[in-house]
Amino acid sequence: MNASDNRFSEAERQGLYRAIRERRDVRAQFLPDPVPEAVLANLLRAAHHAPSVGFMQPWDFIVIDDAGVKQQVKAIFERENERAARNYSGEQAQVYPRLKLEGILESPVNLCITCSRDRGGPNVLGRNTIMETDLFSTCLAVQNLWLAARAEGIGLGWVSILDQDELAQALGLPENVYPLAYVCLGYVDAFPSRPELESKGWRSRLPLEELVHGNRWGAPLENDGLEEALGSNELPGSKR
Amino acid sequence: MNASDNRFSEAERQGLYRAIRERRDVRAQFLPDPVPEAVLANLLRAAHHAPSVGFMQPWDFIVIDDAGVKQQVKAIFERENERAARNYSGEQAQVYPRLKLEGILESPVNLCITCSRDRGGPNVLGRNTIMETDLFSTCLAVQNLWLAARAEGIGLGWVSILDQDELAQALGLPENVYPLAYVCLGYVDAFPSRPELESKGWRSRLPLEELVHGNRWGAPLENDGLEEALGSNELPGSKR
Repeated sequence: MNASDNRFSEAERQGLYRAIRERRDVRAQFLPDPVPEAVLANLLRAAHHAPSVGFMQPWDFIVIDDAGVKQQVKAIFERENERAARNYSGEQAQVYPRLKLEGILESPVNLCITCSRDRGGPNVLGRNTIMETDLFSTCLAVQNLWLAARAEGIGLGWVSILDQDELAQALGLPENVYPLAYVCLGYVDAFPSRPELESKGWRSRLPLEELVHGNRWGAPLENDGLEEALGSNELPGSKR
Repeated sequence: MNASDNRFSEAERQGLYRAIRERRDVRAQFLPDPVPEAVLANLLRAAHHAPSVGFMQPWDFIVIDDAGVKQQVKAIFERENERAARNYSGEQAQVYPRLKLEGILESPVNLCITCSRDRGGPNVLGRNTIMETDLFSTCLAVQNLWLAARAEGIGLGWVSILDQDELAQALGLPENVYPLAYVCLGYVDAFPSRPELESKGWRSRLPLEELVHGNRWGAPLENDGLEEALGSNELPGSKR
């Protein structure tokens, strides 16, 4: 038995790394083409295969295509976004209003991924110390869905500028169900090659080697080989 | 321009779906073989390519291979796990002590993925309503890393039974840095075909179709095609 026998083939690894590298937070490029049911089912299945603390599977999925519900959510976004815009001054105050931060109405499908805080009862295995592990598990499901969407050629945009109480009310969520992610889904005319906030000069990608520590916070890596290997931010298969 | 032009090839999609399907939370199967630096660098790069609210990139990575640090963390786990065991009674009280819930000492590399709560300043774009979006972003990085590890044939186990304050102290974290995930990494002799908590009868995978709602919580899907497509929990490429 060789330790690397469980490694995927080159082509399989490239598929995963490509999804990770080319995934984007999509807001502006949605096409009206419907998402086929079989494809949407694959995305939901990918999410449902996420890990969860104590195999709790705290997620639910509300598939939203009703124009009235979308309009309600869009109105919640607009109120919150007006408040958010007031946080910026100077150059950022100029740029902020020009950023498109959601595609609620243009995308054919919206999806709310919720977290049921009490699923699995009061003593979920592995959740005795950190109660938020159910929310964290639901995030892992969102990332599975996001990557699967990219592989299927479908753009996904996470709308985080929403009042969660108003959103929960609009979707009729029970008291212990938290609307963790509200995302827009649809085919797109193109996936931008870089994150929009990077290409618009809002913020740069940090050099990875500055984010890696050895054994304790702030300590240098004792492993020179790793330090050297980290010298690039590029994932395998990147075209330069 | 066809809407599906951005879709990956069959082989690329299979690679991603395989990683999602065959990813496991590994605790018991670690081999002592070292993880090559170039492979570890790929995993960290995959994590660093996660989406983050406002392109905040709040994560750091502490690479732990020092036996003393590992022993300290293992001691924190043992104290917490004793407390956790007292939560169960009846059959679960019998099963719990037999579950192996971490591989801190056996795995060649431990990794703490942290979240710097104040990175990007006080007004991170998209983080005005939900302050936890930085933690959520860091979770997305963990899932990228987890999937990349699976593709490289490396097992990953998330140790959630740790007192976060004690862990932060052991790793010397500054005040605003939260130790979001502590994971064990290494080659494995095999990846179990099913989640351990499922195969040991702790909890079953929920039927996906019961977790999908139409437009509002509790409402049936109006889309019959989607309902039918959801009839199976199997991801593309699954062998039955």
